[in-house]
Amino acid sequence: MPFSPAPTLDALVRTGVQVALIVVVAVLARAVVIRVIGHASAGAGVPGLVTLLRRRRGITDADRIRAFGSARRAQRARTVGSVIGNAATILIFGTAFTMALGQVGVNLAPVLAAAGVLGLAVGFGAQNLVRDFLSGIFMILEDQYGVGDTVDLGDAVGTIERVGLRTTTVRDVAGMVWYVRNGTIERVGNASQDHAVAVVDVPLAIDTDITHAAAVAESAAAAGIDEAGHGADVLGAPQVLGAEQLRAPGMTLRLTVTTEPGRQWAVQRTVTERVVAALRADEVALAA
Amino acid sequence: MPFSPAPTLDALVRTGVQVALIVVVAVLARAVVIRVIGHASAGAGVPGLVTLLRRRRGITDADRIRAFGSARRAQRARTVGSVIGNAATILIFGTAFTMALGQVGVNLAPVLAAAGVLGLAVGFGAQNLVRDFLSGIFMILEDQYGVGDTVDLGDAVGTIERVGLRTTTVRDVAGMVWYVRNGTIERVGNASQDHAVAVVDVPLAIDTDITHAAAVAESAAAAGIDEAGHGADVLGAPQVLGAEQLRAPGMTLRLTVTTEPGRQWAVQRTVTERVVAALRADEVALAA
Amino acid sequence: MPFSPAPTLDALVRTGVQVALIVVVAVLARAVVIRVIGHASAGAGVPGLVTLLRRRRGITDADRIRAFGSARRAQRARTVGSVIGNAATILIFGTAFTMALGQVGVNLAPVLAAAGVLGLAVGFGAQNLVRDFLSGIFMILEDQYGVGDTVDLGDAVGTIERVGLRTTTVRDVAGMVWYVRNGTIERVGNASQDHAVAVVDVPLAIDTDITHAAAVAESAAAAGIDEAGHGADVLGAPQVLGAEQLRAPGMTLRLTVTTEPGRQWAVQRTVTERVVAALRADEVALAA
Amino acid sequence: MPFSPAPTLDALVRTGVQVALIVVVAVLARAVVIRVIGHASAGAGVPGLVTLLRRRRGITDADRIRAFGSARRAQRARTVGSVIGNAATILIFGTAFTMALGQVGVNLAPVLAAAGVLGLAVGFGAQNLVRDFLSGIFMILEDQYGVGDTVDLGDAVGTIERVGLRTTTVRDVAGMVWYVRNGTIERVGNASQDHAVAVVDVPLAIDTDITHAAAVAESAAAAGIDEAGHGADVLGAPQVLGAEQLRAPGMTLRLTVTTEPGRQWAVQRTVTERVVAALRADEVALAA
Amino acid sequence: MPFSPAPTLDALVRTGVQVALIVVVAVLARAVVIRVIGHASAGAGVPGLVTLLRRRRGITDADRIRAFGSARRAQRARTVGSVIGNAATILIFGTAFTMALGQVGVNLAPVLAAAGVLGLAVGFGAQNLVRDFLSGIFMILEDQYGVGDTVDLGDAVGTIERVGLRTTTVRDVAGMVWYVRNGTIERVGNASQDHAVAVVDVPLAIDTDITHAAAVAESAAAAGIDEAGHGADVLGAPQVLGAEQLRAPGMTLRLTVTTEPGRQWAVQRTVTERVVAALRADEVALAA
Amino acid sequence: MPFSPAPTLDALVRTGVQVALIVVVAVLARAVVIRVIGHASAGAGVPGLVTLLRRRRGITDADRIRAFGSARRAQRARTVGSVIGNAATILIFGTAFTMALGQVGVNLAPVLAAAGVLGLAVGFGAQNLVRDFLSGIFMILEDQYGVGDTVDLGDAVGTIERVGLRTTTVRDVAGMVWYVRNGTIERVGNASQDHAVAVVDVPLAIDTDITHAAAVAESAAAAGIDEAGHGADVLGAPQVLGAEQLRAPGMTLRLTVTTEPGRQWAVQRTVTERVVAALRADEVALAA
Amino acid sequence: MPFSPAPTLDALVRTGVQVALIVVVAVLARAVVIRVIGHASAGAGVPGLVTLLRRRRGITDADRIRAFGSARRAQRARTVGSVIGNAATILIFGTAFTMALGQVGVNLAPVLAAAGVLGLAVGFGAQNLVRDFLSGIFMILEDQYGVGDTVDLGDAVGTIERVGLRTTTVRDVAGMVWYVRNGTIERVGNASQDHAVAVVDVPLAIDTDITHAAAVAESAAAAGIDEAGHGADVLGAPQVLGAEQLRAPGMTLRLTVTTEPGRQWAVQRTVTERVVAALRADEVALAA
Repeated sequence: MPFSPAPTLDALVRTGVQVALIVVVAVLARAVVIRVIGHASAGAGVPGLVTLLRRRRGITDADRIRAFGSARRAQRARTVGSVIGNAATILIFGTAFTMALGQVGVNLAPVLAAAGVLGLAVGFGAQNLVRDFLSGIFMILEDQYGVGDTVDLGDAVGTIERVGLRTTTVRDVAGMVWYVRNGTIERVGNASQDHAVAVVDVPLAIDTDITHAAAVAESAAAAGIDEAGHGADVLGAPQVLGAEQLRAPGMTLRLTVTTEPGRQWAVQRTVTERVVAALRADEVALAA
Repeated sequence: MPFSPAPTLDALVRTGVQVALIVVVAVLARAVVIRVIGHASAGAGVPGLVTLLRRRRGITDADRIRAFGSARRAQRARTVGSVIGNAATILIFGTAFTMALGQVGVNLAPVLAAAGVLGLAVGFGAQNLVRDFLSGIFMILEDQYGVGDTVDLGDAVGTIERVGLRTTTVRDVAGMVWYVRNGTIERVGNASQDHAVAVVDVPLAIDTDITHAAAVAESAAAAGIDEAGHGADVLGAPQVLGAEQLRAPGMTLRLTVTTEPGRQWAVQRTVTERVVAALRADEVALAA
Repeated sequence: MPFSPAPTLDALVRTGVQVALIVVVAVLARAVVIRVIGHASAGAGVPGLVTLLRRRRGITDADRIRAFGSARRAQRARTVGSVIGNAATILIFGTAFTMALGQVGVNLAPVLAAAGVLGLAVGFGAQNLVRDFLSGIFMILEDQYGVGDTVDLGDAVGTIERVGLRTTTVRDVAGMVWYVRNGTIERVGNASQDHAVAVVDVPLAIDTDITHAAAVAESAAAAGIDEAGHGADVLGAPQVLGAEQLRAPGMTLRLTVTTEPGRQWAVQRTVTERVVAALRADEVALAA
Repeated sequence: MPFSPAPTLDALVRTGVQVALIVVVAVLARAVVIRVIGHASAGAGVPGLVTLLRRRRGITDADRIRAFGSARRAQRARTVGSVIGNAATILIFGTAFTMALGQVGVNLAPVLAAAGVLGLAVGFGAQNLVRDFLSGIFMILEDQYGVGDTVDLGDAVGTIERVGLRTTTVRDVAGMVWYVRNGTIERVGNASQDHAVAVVDVPLAIDTDITHAAAVAESAAAAGIDEAGHGADVLGAPQVLGAEQLRAPGMTLRLTVTTEPGRQWAVQRTVTERVVAALRADEVALAA
Repeated sequence: MPFSPAPTLDALVRTGVQVALIVVVAVLARAVVIRVIGHASAGAGVPGLVTLLRRRRGITDADRIRAFGSARRAQRARTVGSVIGNAATILIFGTAFTMALGQVGVNLAPVLAAAGVLGLAVGFGAQNLVRDFLSGIFMILEDQYGVGDTVDLGDAVGTIERVGLRTTTVRDVAGMVWYVRNGTIERVGNASQDHAVAVVDVPLAIDTDITHAAAVAESAAAAGIDEAGHGADVLGAPQVLGAEQLRAPGMTLRLTVTTEPGRQWAVQRTVTERVVAALRADEVALAA
Repeated sequence: MPFSPAPTLDALVRTGVQVALIVVVAVLARAVVIRVIGHASAGAGVPGLVTLLRRRRGITDADRIRAFGSARRAQRARTVGSVIGNAATILIFGTAFTMALGQVGVNLAPVLAAAGVLGLAVGFGAQNLVRDFLSGIFMILEDQYGVGDTVDLGDAVGTIERVGLRTTTVRDVAGMVWYVRNGTIERVGNASQDHAVAVVDVPLAIDTDITHAAAVAESAAAAGIDEAGHGADVLGAPQVLGAEQLRAPGMTLRLTVTTEPGRQWAVQRTVTERVVAALRADEVALAA
Repeated sequence: MPFSPAPTLDALVRTGVQVALIVVVAVLARAVVIRVIGHASAGAGVPGLVTLLRRRRGITDADRIRAFGSARRAQRARTVGSVIGNAATILIFGTAFTMALGQVGVNLAPVLAAAGVLGLAVGFGAQNLVRDFLSGIFMILEDQYGVGDTVDLGDAVGTIERVGLRTTTVRDVAGMVWYVRNGTIERVGNASQDHAVAVVDVPLAIDTDITHAAAVAESAAAAGIDEAGHGADVLGAPQVLGAEQLRAPGMTLRLTVTTEPGRQWAVQRTVTERVVAALRADEVALAA
């Protein structure tokens, strides 16, 4: 490569043509990338992904718009897009400049080695980012949860406020808003799908007559559901499963009621109150 | 490479032929990949994998269809397929374009280096995805669980609702639906295979006559199983293993009954109630 | 490569031109990098990122200036910038020197291999740094929190003092200042967004009449909010959710009040005091 | 490489011969790989590995056949084998096709770079799979456990049902079947090798005369073993080690009996019952 | 490369010149590196970094000198420097020797591959070292703590004794000296910045009149601060926040006083004593 | 490379010679590797490593032979060796075949790329294996423990049964045999080196006269050691260290006796019994 | 490369010379490496590192010799050295052989690829080893602890017995010897540097008069130190810090005494005994 014979005019011309080709391709590539990013960050991408999400009870289109399309979010998305666009511009033009250097006979190995060290650090450091986006895409595609669902993400438990490609936003019972990176979510528990179950575990003293206690609890639960107006919430009669546990403090009597999703907590509270009151009225000893 | 002699017309023609060859191969490759993805995402792949799954008790073909073949799931699978297809198209045409650039004499090292940095980040970030799919394929091939089985996946305990290549869906006792990434499952506990065992540990005061208590418990368990109509559920007579533990609160008397899978909890509750009642009737002190 | 034919004068001249070109490009590249770093470290970058942050209640521009633009912080940012600039200078001139060596016919493979080993260690070691910066950029872009917000970063709980690209600074209730690396933050809980909820869990003895206790608690909470002048703080009437828990020590009665962000703790304390006093006055047994 | 002189007919012929050679080698290689996989998945490999496993007490050849050679398992193994075979076919023919492309003068660098990115993701994602198989091979070679052994794998405790190359199957005391990936097993505890020890820790009040209690316990244990017919199970007389612990609740008297493997729990239960009865009869205060 | 035509004398001369050039560059490079290391390890580097550290209360220049410039530390730094210098010498001369081998026509690929394996192990093993140094540099640049600050590093809590590039040294309350690697510090809590807060949580019985108890506690705290001569330590009057907690044992009354950094513990003790005494004098029941 | 000029007969001959050379070298290399593996797996390697292990008390050569040289272990080692030998054969001949392909003009890049993807997965998956062997070699070289030592490996506590290159085998107090991978052992606690210490912590009520209790305990311990015939076991008189702890339940009086390794538990039990008896006789209140 | 023109005799000679050069360099390189390893493993290296370690109280040269220079350790070091030497020999001669192959025209790419796969596994597996040695070197250079120091390494707490490059050996209070790999030590706590502090926390009932209790405790501590002959051990008068904690069981009174390193435990025990006795004599209620 060094000390090669003098270039002819013809070769110079060809080199010039190649450099010009590189520049043209780089400009075109940047334009395409910027357009794609702009398109995606304008929100055209995510709704495209979510059109197949099922219609959930009580989640109107207005809610979806609030979640994905409000003005401030659009502005924020544009900012993110322009930052990513700048990064892409630097990468594309840096690559094109290096290629042009190579066309005029410079040995590129040292430049590529230096870029490799930087790239190694950046590539390793960015793997979390990629993981977050890939997890987000698949979670949306698999429709694991939608805005308004009550979920348990491990790190955060509450109601989904926003489903993003990188982070999911959840508001918990104390009104705290949690931003969870999608890549850190290993399992999702969704309490708003198809049906739910209210579970009441009544602690009983170990010398209780379980059969009697179960009968009392069952009728109290059924009566309580009617009286409290939970008729439309429950999908079946209360079931007493029987003695669930036999440990030092006593036994546990488990009682379940299948409900509409989102109504399990109200039903559970009603049943708890009624069963405890009935057992006390019946002088069954609670293990408290 | 730079300043090489002027190309002859012949060489130009050959270069054109090579570029055309690249384009043709790329178009063909994309067509094949898109077809394979479509085939797989239409559900033809997974059922092929699951045909060897054993027929489980109470899981009808209708259940399987519900799990794998319903309309909405098919639609969702097509969406996933089209997203993956777009990614493959970008990768294949990008590669072909770079190859064509190389054929006309451009030094590709900088482009490949830039692609390498992106590829490193994407490759690292995507390893979880690959791990999930590989784990899913092997778990299905090894038939570790099927729809309707009661399982313990560590992160989630309940009944399998769907077996997917990337995620498994489980509904727990409170009706919550858990999406667990297959790659995060280190061990699977399946309570629905061949047989199950109901285990009852009765806490006894430390000064109890164990031999007597064991006899009382055993006959009460046997009687209870008959009276409660669990005859078809149990696969053997109750076994009293004896004193299992000797700690500060007292001793534990362990009693086991082998049952049909899925019936262990009902049998366990019945036996618990009967044994506790019999011991109380016999004035054996429970360690409560 | 070795034992190649003697270079002609012409080739020598061309090599000299190439080396000169390398030097010129290196000097220019360094100048550009130094200028960009100086620009960014002078604080021009971060404010550019944060202009889209929403205006929060009670956070004035003066606060922002205090957080981002004070003299000492500017000086510190310049120092960081000059350190990074020196690193970039070493990298750029080292690369250029190696390229010049290559142009005069030296086999660069050993140098590049040695650089690769160093680069591997540095690249791996620096991935945390890159991760911190990338996380910081996205957290700022997504506006997860701002100066003055009360947050739970897992490692630290308190009020945000400074939002940096690499670290976030939080002051906790005991006045301790926490520096948290952005890359170690997996989820962010922000208690200062839109609204908050004061949650009071009253422990009741298991034989309490819950309906009565709930009525007493609700009216006491409403009265207390009025008397304590929290009228402007709350966004709705107190809600008694009912029996929340049924464990050995008794039951829990849960009561919530939606409030302005930042006022939840004051409201919660007021409600706690009033409800406890009212229940005591009503002779309802607390499970203490 | 580009713009090289026109190929002679001779060169074209030679290229054709090389391509034909590649195709032949690829077809042969695929045939060999498919045959090896079929051979291995037909179960010929694992038994070959396990022939040196020691004959354990009570594990008949029938058990081994049940574990490795039943019809359904054979069918499942063939399915796994055909899936792996398809993957190998794709890899081999894809490689051959790329080589043929290279022989006709196409620059392969972009294809290899694209394959490298995919390969990086797959290679990283597949490392767990490789780890599982390597761990399985060594665990089988080192004969750490066999079908019927009682083991503690950390994730699962119970009886080995199947020893596989990727997963080990264990059934626990409640009849639950655990599938544990071999690569996640860091240590194996095997309770069925050579001999076992029944350990009974009797909690004593702190003001007990230990020497007396030890004498009582020792003779009760020896008598109990004889009376309960454990003569063939134990490999030595019971040993009282003395006061093992001195904590707030009192002291612990430890007593051990060496037994045949698998008999330790029955012996332990017998000894526990006898020693507790004897101490109670002797009015030694237990720390319960 | 092999069997290349015989070298001319001219080529031999040029090869000699190239080898000589390599040796000269290597000697120069080593000299520069040794000088830089010596300069840095003589302590010239770290003080340069720390000149912008703010002046803390009570940390004199003498303290800084003690921390960075004592004779023994200088000697130790020189030893570290000479070890690093030897490593650099081996690396530089080994690289130069390999380059010279390459100039005389030896195929270097096997040497580079062998070096690569070693380099991979060393590079991976050294990443912790690099991480420690990078973390240390940024923690010093960001001025997270200085000598004399009271910090919580997670692994160690106490007073900073030395701020190093690789390790930070902390002395805890029991006089134990902790060496913490900077790269293992995920978050830093600094109790010595700007101000601190003394927090006193008084446990009250659940049937306490909180309003009265708060008034008693507040005046007792204010009086105690005056009497104990903490006037210069506190930056504001004590604040009673009210009932902080409502759990089984009772309620908690929280009281805070903002203080000068470092004085919070003394103030906290004084306030604790005074408030407890005042509440006891007032016959308010503490939840002990 | 493609379309190169027609080979002369001479070139064909030379290619043939090169291929023959490759085959010969491969056959020789395989023979050497198989011999080395056979040598090592016949146990010649490990004993060579362990000859410098110190002679421990009570570990005879017969024990060592039992640990390393029994017939079954030799057979198992040969099986392991033959498996590794097969793997080496495949690797060597595969490499040789690929080299021969390369000598006849085939572009090897695609084959090497495919091998690289497989190699990446295998290399990553095998790192645990390598780590285990390297850890094992160094643990044996550093003589951290030998057969018969009582050790705490974190995962397993008991007596060493076998020291292997990949796994260490420990039998615990309940007779369970633990196989621990050497690479997972982060620290080793060895209770059989040079000497041991029996430590007895006596819990005392907080209002005990410690000086008196210490005197009573010390003389009781000394007397007990004599009477129980532990004269040869102890290396020094019992030492009462004094009040070790001051927590809610009371104080702790610590007493230590230095003993021969392996005798600490017997001495500890004796001393415990005697001290407790003496304190009771002296009416010192124990904190039980 | 294949089918290259026939070599001239001259070229054959030159190839022979190159191969001879490779052999000579390999033999020389091996000799140098073996000598360096022998030098280092003979202990010349470590003492060279440790000469700057400060002289600690009570650590004589004899101790150092015992730690680094005894006959058995020297023998062990030589064995380690010879094992490493064999590994280096294999690596160097394998590399040289491959280079010679390359000089006679063999395509080395497949050999290097095969070596790369092995190297990847070994390199990854060996990173822990490298990390251990690097950590050890820096811990020795930074003089974090020496033989005889009392340290807390997280995994092991006790007295340093040996400071090694790969492992540190600690003997704990029960005489157990811990081998801790240096790379697993994240922080080191050293209780033997400059001074130590005896800390006594006295639990007081919540209705105690703290001022009085503090006065009693302080004078009792001072008197006890004098009477117990700890005058030379303490570096200052006892300090009563005041009420340290205010939780359910009561308050804690903290008292500290600065002592010589190593004397803190004796002083602490003395002070504990005296303070408890004095408070009891003064009828101050301890919270036991």
